[in-house]
Amino acid sequence: MCEAHAFILKDGEEEMFLESVDLVEMEEDEIKLVSIFGEQKILKARLKLYDNTKRKIVFEEL
Amino acid sequence: MCEAHAFILKDGEEEMFLESVDLVEMEEDEIKLVSIFGEQKILKARLKLYDNTKRKIVFEEL
Repeated sequence: MCEAHAFILKDGEEEMFLESVDLVEMEEDEIKLVSIFGEQKILKARLKLYDNTKRKIVFEEL
Repeated sequence: MCEAHAFILKDGEEEMFLESVDLVEMEEDEIKLVSIFGEQKILKARLKLYDNTKRKIVFEEL
């Protein structure tokens, strides 16, 4: 219910790349995301926006 | 119900600095946080951890 979805900014557009994010861990410039389904994604990015009301986390690539 | 609380890492310890975060916006190296109560905080930091289960967002100061 409470999970947010992760988006990546591409050419000014927000593109969803991971649903129902459970965990986000930053290590150096790499971010590891894990969904509640156990799906994992790693990307070189940084946080741009977290909007609790819209349930979204937006990253921009480095 | 679904809001997470924001913490800042200080000497390896997580210190709460904003309850019930509604919005996090990154601009350059500054992060603006707004709570559901309208309280705003700005700090120079970056995301370290987002843990949906524990309802917390942890930042480390730059």
